[in-house]
Amino acid sequence: MPPRATTIAFDVMGSDHGPAEVVRGAAALSLEAPHVHALLVGDGKQIDAVLAETRHSGERISVHHAPDFVGMHEKPSEALGRTPKASIMVATQLVADGEADAVVTAGNTGAGVLACARTFQLIPGVRRAALASVYPTRTWHGTKEDPFSLILDVGATVDATAEDLVTFAVMGAAYARIISKNPNPSVALLSNGTEATKGPPRVVEAHARLAKHGGIRFVGNVEGIDIPKGTADVICCDGFVGNICLKMLEGVAETVVELANYAYHSALRWKIGLAMLSNGLKQLKDVTDWQQYGGAPVLGFDRLFIKAHGRSRARAIANAGKVAAKAVTSDLAHAIREGLSPSGS
Amino acid sequence: MPPRATTIAFDVMGSDHGPAEVVRGAAALSLEAPHVHALLVGDGKQIDAVLAETRHSGERISVHHAPDFVGMHEKPSEALGRTPKASIMVATQLVADGEADAVVTAGNTGAGVLACARTFQLIPGVRRAALASVYPTRTWHGTKEDPFSLILDVGATVDATAEDLVTFAVMGAAYARIISKNPNPSVALLSNGTEATKGPPRVVEAHARLAKHGGIRFVGNVEGIDIPKGTADVICCDGFVGNICLKMLEGVAETVVELANYAYHSALRWKIGLAMLSNGLKQLKDVTDWQQYGGAPVLGFDRLFIKAHGRSRARAIANAGKVAAKAVTSDLAHAIREGLSPSGS
Repeated sequence: MPPRATTIAFDVMGSDHGPAEVVRGAAALSLEAPHVHALLVGDGKQIDAVLAETRHSGERISVHHAPDFVGMHEKPSEALGRTPKASIMVATQLVADGEADAVVTAGNTGAGVLACARTFQLIPGVRRAALASVYPTRTWHGTKEDPFSLILDVGATVDATAEDLVTFAVMGAAYARIISKNPNPSVALLSNGTEATKGPPRVVEAHARLAKHGGIRFVGNVEGIDIPKGTADVICCDGFVGNICLKMLEGVAETVVELANYAYHSALRWKIGLAMLSNGLKQLKDVTDWQQYGGAPVLGFDRLFIKAHGRSRARAIANAGKVAAKAVTSDLAHAIREGLSPSGS
Repeated sequence: MPPRATTIAFDVMGSDHGPAEVVRGAAALSLEAPHVHALLVGDGKQIDAVLAETRHSGERISVHHAPDFVGMHEKPSEALGRTPKASIMVATQLVADGEADAVVTAGNTGAGVLACARTFQLIPGVRRAALASVYPTRTWHGTKEDPFSLILDVGATVDATAEDLVTFAVMGAAYARIISKNPNPSVALLSNGTEATKGPPRVVEAHARLAKHGGIRFVGNVEGIDIPKGTADVICCDGFVGNICLKMLEGVAETVVELANYAYHSALRWKIGLAMLSNGLKQLKDVTDWQQYGGAPVLGFDRLFIKAHGRSRARAIANAGKVAAKAVTSDLAHAIREGLSPSGS
């Protein structure tokens, strides 16, 4: 008997490029990943229209009609109040009911996190969920030798306690082990100095707890300069700080280029150099576009939710589906549960 | 009668390049700024040796012997316990006693802030001081049309309350008006979203208060992406977040370059472009070295303290001295006091 397929519920609605791009991503996945089944949640008519003109494997795709959706710029709680049957809610409910194993969406982040909170259960020992994000660094990480680190939380839990930060460390390490194939990831706390005493009380306390934690390779505090450096494989912070840092990374590539232009407008050699780079710099912007890399998982619930960037093209959606399937088959939730159990500490 | 000279106490000790570089900076200042007197605080013998071989105006330089100092990597409270007569303490005490009008140092930041706290008085209405930093952005600011914004606090007050954030806004606006010649600077709060309800309670409350504040052009919340963009002239946050953001900016220029190299190692055209830029990129690193721009003032005390970068060369020291003198003659402390008085709100 073949292994049961992993079913990924794709929220097709509410992304920047409309349903077609998400459907195309799922169609590509259906051709590439024989053990993954894509359950497309959204407007059935629109989905069918795209499928009709896109090569896909019909037996690995099914459709669940849910035409309502939350817009990208709507306030999550208001929007879900207005449209309780929004595609993102239907998708998470299908996962909660066991009809699918994980959710992928390129829609409104806040609405997605809220839908998780309303339909999924927190893993025992987890007080608050975290949105984690993979981002590019200067250092090579893990056995895949890729230049990406993980930072969490980046926006789900604005006010994290010391206990939450320890939980984030455990969850981030589990994710790095499974998804980044980094068997012994280094884990750090983000602070305003490397000493154990640096930072607000919650960070100092989390440092003391992590220093005694047996299940994690805790390397202490790192500073802001270590984020782009990639000093640690996993960086933990509260969602307020993490969100600010991540958004800073987003704007930084183009800023450096513009500054270079401003500072060196008089040097012809530099002008030519920049011109030769211009195409590369545009692509560099994509490299530093952190949400392209398989999406940002919400960690802490018994079910997996992956947020792909709102601007995701089909390729990024298919990648997010693969990451979600890998997390399911590797039983990420179990690894987190183990890490949080007393024997894990 | 000529106006009384403004006296700047230069802490000559404890910087990365040793006393000579600071003395040379003060010597240059003595030739350029006729209304500034430089009081050099440090090892008299070393100072005299440098002055003997450096062009300077003898009548605008005097020396106060204070050979002890705090090392760059010492823990501030321990170091000041060990050397209560450290040059930074002597320099702030001279200012507190009226022998000088402001302090400039390129030494240990924490020791400097602590020395201020021990010898200066907080301006009435200020609960906690803030370390402010000028940093480069993509936007032109003020009547000088320079590309720099101000961010505060970047490390003096790790846990800032809503009240502190409002105070930082007032102080930052006063500094931008006087030093950056920006008559009506825009002031923003750093948060994880632009809506007034975004962020931890202290930020939400500060937003509500600033929205009603009459003396400041408050433009609401900005996000991490707005820091390099320069969306606001003055950005306010607690010292924990500000320190992390500022240090991220430091490491970002070289990271972008290395990432470009990594991502495009196969394209010859990009390789050549990067090679042509290499010298420019090194200088770009200096441009993004935020502490070069006249130093980082500690705001909130009745006396001014300016922290120049530890790696400052003579030019940066002289600039910091000019900024300090300008703040004194423009009575920055008075402007802050006015901004905090009930009529200012």
